[in-house]
Amino acid sequence: MNELDAQPLSGEPAARVLVAGANGFTGALAARIVWDHPRLRLVAATSRSDAGKRIDALYPRYRVPLELTELDPENPPQVDAAIVAYPHGAAAPTVAALRARGILVVDLSADFRLRSMETYERWYGEHGAPDLFGTGVYGLSEMYREELREAKLVATPGCYPTATVLGLAPLAERGLLDEVFVSAMQGTSGYGRSSDDLVHFSAMTENAFPYKTEGHRHRPEIEQELAALGSPAPVTFVPHLLPLDQGELATCFAALTEPTSREAILALYEERYRDEPFVKLLDKPPTLRALRDTNECHVYVTVEERGRVMAFSALDNIWKGASSQGIQNLNLMLGLDETEGLR
Amino acid sequence: MNELDAQPLSGEPAARVLVAGANGFTGALAARIVWDHPRLRLVAATSRSDAGKRIDALYPRYRVPLELTELDPENPPQVDAAIVAYPHGAAAPTVAALRARGILVVDLSADFRLRSMETYERWYGEHGAPDLFGTGVYGLSEMYREELREAKLVATPGCYPTATVLGLAPLAERGLLDEVFVSAMQGTSGYGRSSDDLVHFSAMTENAFPYKTEGHRHRPEIEQELAALGSPAPVTFVPHLLPLDQGELATCFAALTEPTSREAILALYEERYRDEPFVKLLDKPPTLRALRDTNECHVYVTVEERGRVMAFSALDNIWKGASSQGIQNLNLMLGLDETEGLR
Amino acid sequence: MNELDAQPLSGEPAARVLVAGANGFTGALAARIVWDHPRLRLVAATSRSDAGKRIDALYPRYRVPLELTELDPENPPQVDAAIVAYPHGAAAPTVAALRARGILVVDLSADFRLRSMETYERWYGEHGAPDLFGTGVYGLSEMYREELREAKLVATPGCYPTATVLGLAPLAERGLLDEVFVSAMQGTSGYGRSSDDLVHFSAMTENAFPYKTEGHRHRPEIEQELAALGSPAPVTFVPHLLPLDQGELATCFAALTEPTSREAILALYEERYRDEPFVKLLDKPPTLRALRDTNECHVYVTVEERGRVMAFSALDNIWKGASSQGIQNLNLMLGLDETEGLR
Amino acid sequence: MNELDAQPLSGEPAARVLVAGANGFTGALAARIVWDHPRLRLVAATSRSDAGKRIDALYPRYRVPLELTELDPENPPQVDAAIVAYPHGAAAPTVAALRARGILVVDLSADFRLRSMETYERWYGEHGAPDLFGTGVYGLSEMYREELREAKLVATPGCYPTATVLGLAPLAERGLLDEVFVSAMQGTSGYGRSSDDLVHFSAMTENAFPYKTEGHRHRPEIEQELAALGSPAPVTFVPHLLPLDQGELATCFAALTEPTSREAILALYEERYRDEPFVKLLDKPPTLRALRDTNECHVYVTVEERGRVMAFSALDNIWKGASSQGIQNLNLMLGLDETEGLR
Repeated sequence: MNELDAQPLSGEPAARVLVAGANGFTGALAARIVWDHPRLRLVAATSRSDAGKRIDALYPRYRVPLELTELDPENPPQVDAAIVAYPHGAAAPTVAALRARGILVVDLSADFRLRSMETYERWYGEHGAPDLFGTGVYGLSEMYREELREAKLVATPGCYPTATVLGLAPLAERGLLDEVFVSAMQGTSGYGRSSDDLVHFSAMTENAFPYKTEGHRHRPEIEQELAALGSPAPVTFVPHLLPLDQGELATCFAALTEPTSREAILALYEERYRDEPFVKLLDKPPTLRALRDTNECHVYVTVEERGRVMAFSALDNIWKGASSQGIQNLNLMLGLDETEGLR
Repeated sequence: MNELDAQPLSGEPAARVLVAGANGFTGALAARIVWDHPRLRLVAATSRSDAGKRIDALYPRYRVPLELTELDPENPPQVDAAIVAYPHGAAAPTVAALRARGILVVDLSADFRLRSMETYERWYGEHGAPDLFGTGVYGLSEMYREELREAKLVATPGCYPTATVLGLAPLAERGLLDEVFVSAMQGTSGYGRSSDDLVHFSAMTENAFPYKTEGHRHRPEIEQELAALGSPAPVTFVPHLLPLDQGELATCFAALTEPTSREAILALYEERYRDEPFVKLLDKPPTLRALRDTNECHVYVTVEERGRVMAFSALDNIWKGASSQGIQNLNLMLGLDETEGLR
Repeated sequence: MNELDAQPLSGEPAARVLVAGANGFTGALAARIVWDHPRLRLVAATSRSDAGKRIDALYPRYRVPLELTELDPENPPQVDAAIVAYPHGAAAPTVAALRARGILVVDLSADFRLRSMETYERWYGEHGAPDLFGTGVYGLSEMYREELREAKLVATPGCYPTATVLGLAPLAERGLLDEVFVSAMQGTSGYGRSSDDLVHFSAMTENAFPYKTEGHRHRPEIEQELAALGSPAPVTFVPHLLPLDQGELATCFAALTEPTSREAILALYEERYRDEPFVKLLDKPPTLRALRDTNECHVYVTVEERGRVMAFSALDNIWKGASSQGIQNLNLMLGLDETEGLR
Repeated sequence: MNELDAQPLSGEPAARVLVAGANGFTGALAARIVWDHPRLRLVAATSRSDAGKRIDALYPRYRVPLELTELDPENPPQVDAAIVAYPHGAAAPTVAALRARGILVVDLSADFRLRSMETYERWYGEHGAPDLFGTGVYGLSEMYREELREAKLVATPGCYPTATVLGLAPLAERGLLDEVFVSAMQGTSGYGRSSDDLVHFSAMTENAFPYKTEGHRHRPEIEQELAALGSPAPVTFVPHLLPLDQGELATCFAALTEPTSREAILALYEERYRDEPFVKLLDKPPTLRALRDTNECHVYVTVEERGRVMAFSALDNIWKGASSQGIQNLNLMLGLDETEGLR
């Protein structure tokens, strides 16, 4: 029996999909979401280093009974769309090859997120497909929904920008942000599958620490997006690694450009997120467990006596912070209901 | 055999010590440190609710083979000093009773930390010994070493103020702090032994969250101390609970009153902490595991391109953030070497 | 809007369901599975101590927007079936009251699992509904499927018997078990929601231990069921608590009544479990993460050089070990597909 | 300043010590214990792959400010004794080279533990120093104390044999063991520092599993030692990996050669362990947290109604199960108090 026939599609497939880099944490999860998606057919899942292994051997809980194959970008399988889960820098040439064949691409790397080549080169080095640079749509569905419906190449934002921008967007859009400080924290799945002393269970249990304290490459991405929304505010950003697997919290402190009452701020958030299917405005602080394994972002905002805002924005870093957000984007690109396969 | 005779004293006892509230996390640890201390004799450890149980039954790893007794504050055992590990509010009357008998007191509660009764009443309610209010020395040895040598009543600071003030003191002392934002995070031992759904292993594993987001009573304590050092700066403070037992990190963002170079800031920190036995200035970000079960505070400071300072200050919340800091204070009060029993 | 109208039923409701005791770990999960079930309507979820609270306040990740009410067993809501998630001993009177009104009952407690009143009284004390004792069907679907289709009262087995019996059933049914030793281990959700020093995160992290070493009340239940299958073998059983939330493993050592080849044993297991929808025979040892949040039981069997059998049986203790197994039973009682709502 | 001068020796050094392989979990811990030992001078700590790094960079919490160097076994530093913490197979040639120079060797590998070359070759492959095979003393101080005082080469047992043999020795010595089943479980430090998907925090949190189910090389070592003590009983052994760092439990089931009363068995254990400094006979089941970071082994024994014995033996796998047991052996070899540096 062909395992692929086992995929439980409940409707007419809207697209045949390839997941490239399906051996890493985010690629494997993308493959699993496509596999369970009622309208997408998973045609192939590929990996450079783990070809020949089955996804359910590497990630038993995802239950995808599919063997990883190697991808020849010049000769890809017959697909309508591809999700590319390669490391930053390595993604661009493959994205270019797939786009050249007319394949819709949802890229999960940073290669097409930035709008300034100078900034890209500073943080990531030489770009692997400069002709395509700047042609992607930033894949934050809540901000760029209309553009995404027409997009051919989508740059899905990283987990830190997703959490931070969703936490501050209602203020950014009104030009209210004057200065922002972000203390973000994340589980070890955000550190990737790469084996490293730091994420050995014996090193990480009962531990926590800040990292990339001298500048994190997600900061310019966050500043770019807050500015695009209307607030060109400087951002100080520092991430921390926590002893948990999946989950991310951005604790954002903001000074505003003008005095704004607590009520007015709450009203901005309520109005902004009332109709968003995946952003949930809470009336108390978020907890990471509550949204694990979902595409949700939970936001809570409060205001200090002297007017400083604290916005807390939580999500699952490999779901809404990566893979499921990629599918949310793909749903929009394909004209499907944005929530299909994500409830 | 009297179990107390088993205490391994290596020198002449400098004081007979009582630990009140030795059934809670910080009281039990204080009892253990006194037990292992070469110059202190642990005469009694008391508990309201667990009298009759042995400390090593409640906390096997502390290996203190002592039975908890009940304390009658009006008729305490013959001791020279007492460490009081009672909840905020409950400590004051017992402290007063012990002081009335001439017993030196190291209080681990918040009851004598604040200098403004109005502030105390706002955050903690009515004070249980108003006559003594304001008479304690703030037990941050690194700041009040000389006063502590003469003190009869010491208010040991909480873990959050200890971490934050040590993280920012070199700037505060020069009047350099203009505004401060603190994202602090702590393990579940900071939540106390009280049984609560939130700290059930099943609720806390794979979880993390901010709490007391509408104002934390440690904020006024932090502002008080930074002001006392020279920087009356407003502080925005929010704590988080992490899925680990012991460990605390204060991630502090600061805007300065005047432009100051990175080199100048590093020099301030180096000079300030060069001779401190328990504050270690790192050349990379701290990790909580590195200082677990010690009285150390690890500090790392860095400066952003646009001049914002990030200071990271880590400690073990029940050691340097509570119990061992209490013993450090007691060492000073008794004229012992500050580090005795704490290496 | 009535929150109940929000329940996403996709088919005609086959039954109106009450969950009693929906504030505990297994009751809340049962409510969640019923809520998400395409053919069951959740009419009420009750709790003695948490009435008035919403399930999604107590267990946000279950997303059941329903307020807990109090149950008057003499005057229950109009339902066809009830899942009773009460402590052992407390369940029987409520079960009797519900049965007296013709309501189908799936009991998750131990009150109707044993067949000998003497054994029940030894381990649990006086029985609360002796008239009903012995009238329930043992709710291990894989063994009593036909009886369950006709059952009015089902005693869902506990997690340890479920894991152990499924791990050894192919041998038991052939009378092959001569003696059994079981080392079982479980996460803290098996310890219940009751607050206890032992399951405080600070006590349980980096810890593990055996418990109930002087005799565990699940042993007679296991012996009863192995004998019912064909092997009246003595069982030595000891459970351990592990630092994880959900998951359970029964490591079973067995001496056989007659020499049996490895191939013959593997063949027995393969034949026995080939068509079971929820028992998966693995070709390597199970891992707990692979089956978390599912109704699956993963079994692996191997044979030593000298003929001793090791059978490893893993499941999620609050799913297949309690709540979802209860729904599996209810599906059978209602004539539904056994897997409905459990995939 | 020479960092080595910083070592806090409190007495006259009894030996100059080399730790080879001080970059792995057990080697680094051995270096740390030697560093803190009042009578041993740590002359060098070596590593093939991490030479040039400091131990306190790799393991900050051990606080050993020493740079790792490379070891030329033909030209080692001037030392009296060496602790060799190499992988199985790799240790033998280095041990031989050091012994040829008259250096006392405590080997932490399996290379000199077995007495049958055939068994060694079956489980470990070709031996790297066959001339020395069989010349080492088995480093379980509690069993071979006298031999260890004269030993030049000590084969420190692994953590599983240490736990199991100490758990069963009082029975084994009386020839009472007829058959043994061991379910052992261990934290991830027992898995070594080697980076592996399995011990990534994201894979191991909320997980647990049996491994090496088809035969574990510690089984023949356990059988060898139980036979040497007086009970040539067959052993069925299976290990499990748990989501914790340090700690190990051997849950041992035993059938006896003759009926023996519970009182008689307890008396055997009490008599056997009364004077052992590091084996503690408990009156309730052990917990791993209670002995973490110590050289202790905690034993609890109970007897079932029908006469089966359950013995629980717990220790810290990298302390008593490896490094600190090595120092215990070295103390004996050097004529020091066995407990020196280990309290």
